[in-house]
Parts: sequence; C-alpha cells; structure tokens
Amino acid sequence: MNFLDHIRTIPDFPKPGIQFKDITTLLKHPEAFSAVIDRMVERYKGAGITQVMGVESRGFIFGSALATRLKVGFVPIRKAGKLPGETFRKSYALEYGEATIELHKDAVGKGDRVLIVDDLLATGGTLEASVSLVREAGAEVAAIWILIELGFLNGRKVLPGIQVDSELVVD
Amino acid sequence: MNFLDHIRTIPDFPKPGIQFKDITTLLKHPEAFSAVIDRMVERYKGAGITQVMGVESRGFIFGSALATRLKVGFVPIRKAGKLPGETFRKSYALEYGEATIELHKDAVGKGDRVLIVDDLLATGGTLEASVSLVREAGAEVAAIWILIELGFLNGRKVLPGIQVDSELVVD
Repeated sequence: MNFLDHIRTIPDFPKPGIQFKDITTLLKHPEAFSAVIDRMVERYKGAGITQVMGVESRGFIFGSALATRLKVGFVPIRKAGKLPGETFRKSYALEYGEATIELHKDAVGKGDRVLIVDDLLATGGTLEASVSLVREAGAEVAAIWILIELGFLNGRKVLPGIQVDSELVVD
Repeated sequence: MNFLDHIRTIPDFPKPGIQFKDITTLLKHPEAFSAVIDRMVERYKGAGITQVMGVESRGFIFGSALATRLKVGFVPIRKAGKLPGETFRKSYALEYGEATIELHKDAVGKGDRVLIVDDLLATGGTLEASVSLVREAGAEVAAIWILIELGFLNGRKVLPGIQVDSELVVD
C-alpha cells in the first residue's frame, strides 16, 4: 500500500504558501490506518521500547495506537500549560516567535528506552526539543518515528546520532 | 483492576477550586492502559461501529488505540482552525465565553455508526456539540465512551437518548 495515496495536500493552509499534508484521509481509511500501525509494530517489536511518547496532538494518534499494540505505556509531550503535574519545559524557535513543550518529570526515567512519535518532520524544532526533554528526564531515545518527512527541509540535521524512521519522504 | 488507583488528582489545576483528574499516570502504566483499551474492545466489538471519533486532544489517545484494535477508521474532532478541509462547526458555551469544534464534512456520512470517545464527561458541552456535528454529517451516534464521568455535574442530561458508557463515575 502506498500511504501517500491516502494523504491529501491542502494548499495555503494554515497560511499562504504552505502545502499542508492532511493525514485525516489516511486515518479514516480502515485498511490504510491499520497498515501504518502494523508497520510500526513490525519495526519496533523486540526493540526494547519501554514507552511510546506522542507529541501533541497528531503524535497522540499514532503513538497511543502503537503503545496498545506493543503493550507498553503511553506518555504525552504537551504544549505549555496542559500537563498538571511537575514538568520539564523546553522552548524552541518558530519562524515567528517561539513555542514551549512539556513532559511530566515522573513520566520516564533512567533505564527507559523511549520511542518518540509525531506525524511530521519539518524543520525538526519540536522533535529536537522532545529529545532534550527525554534526556533531561534521564531516559534514552531509542528512535523517532514520523509518518511524513519533508526531505527538502532537512530536519534530520538537528537530530544527530538519533535513529529517525519515516514512512514517507516528500521532496 | 481499579482504574481509579491509576488516576491522580491534582488540586487547583488549571485554576483554583478544580480537582483535576490526571490520567497520564494511567496511560504510562502498561497494564492499566492495556486494560482500559481491552475493556473498550470488549464493549464495542460486534456493535457495528464504522468509525471511532476522538475529541481533541485526550480523546485522540483512547480513540485511536481503540480504532486500531477494532480495525476501523479514526476521525478527529478538533478545536476551531485545526482541520484543513471543509468542516462543520459547532460553538457551545463555557463557564466564561465559548468554544468551537469542527469535523471534516467528508469524514463520516449516511449509514455510518460512530463511537465518540473522550476522556472526561463534565457538564457535557463538548460532547453535546460533537453529537450535533456527527448528525449534521448525516451519520448516527452509536454511543459515547468516556473514561471518567463526573457524576455530580450530571452531564448526561444534555445527551438524551444516547448510550453513554463511562468506565468510572466520580461523585
């Protein structure tokens, strides 16, 4: 199955010039959604993953589905102000301004091997910050999984030494 | 397993007087998270559910995990401005001000039997609006599932005639 056939491109969303990759058409398609999660299971079963971490909010969708299939725990990385307990926080630059994400301090720790999951790798800022949070908590990043990698933005360059697995590369 | 043992209460979050039910402690616990999803599968297998719909953003976590186990599609209900395609929109009152949620117009339609999933039933405003969106799209609400029902707020009263299944009732 070519997953790209199930993703539609919406021009000028959320602002002019951006070709938005809409994954909701894949998610609603039972065979396509199942096939994506099946591939994730094949990749990571036996890899010693102790938690799947999903990045708010589309990362939650793939991350929790994988977690239930691998029978490991699910941990959310959230935008600032959403997690109620004590958190590690990391800010990173956006095109204009900055964003902050958080991880509960007691979510993962030493000895844990975490898989970070998101839908899209663009410039890599969010994922770089996510890696930083996992390491601050004392855990190891086993790999990063994303559905779609925008190859022309070369977001991998800010994730040196980390295994980055993408299902689709769009150039 | 008593799921309540895996949920912690954080006082005064996000504002004074609110006893916030933090489900992240359940999500990160492999057996507890698996047990919740297993119970959902038992409830709804054979019920003719055609799509699982998750309400942003904690509803995504339970909804997508269930969808992959039932092998049906997953559909997100999102806060205003997040979905790139044409949407149905519904606004509803909050304690102060209002909120708007959206559903892609082509996400579900006539003949579909949708299960709506969220983590919490409080006053029921979000879920009432979600039901309205599903019906506007021409589909049927098979049931609503929530992990935690705040019984003292009696949110069920705004969901007449709908099967509302909660794992936990907190009074």
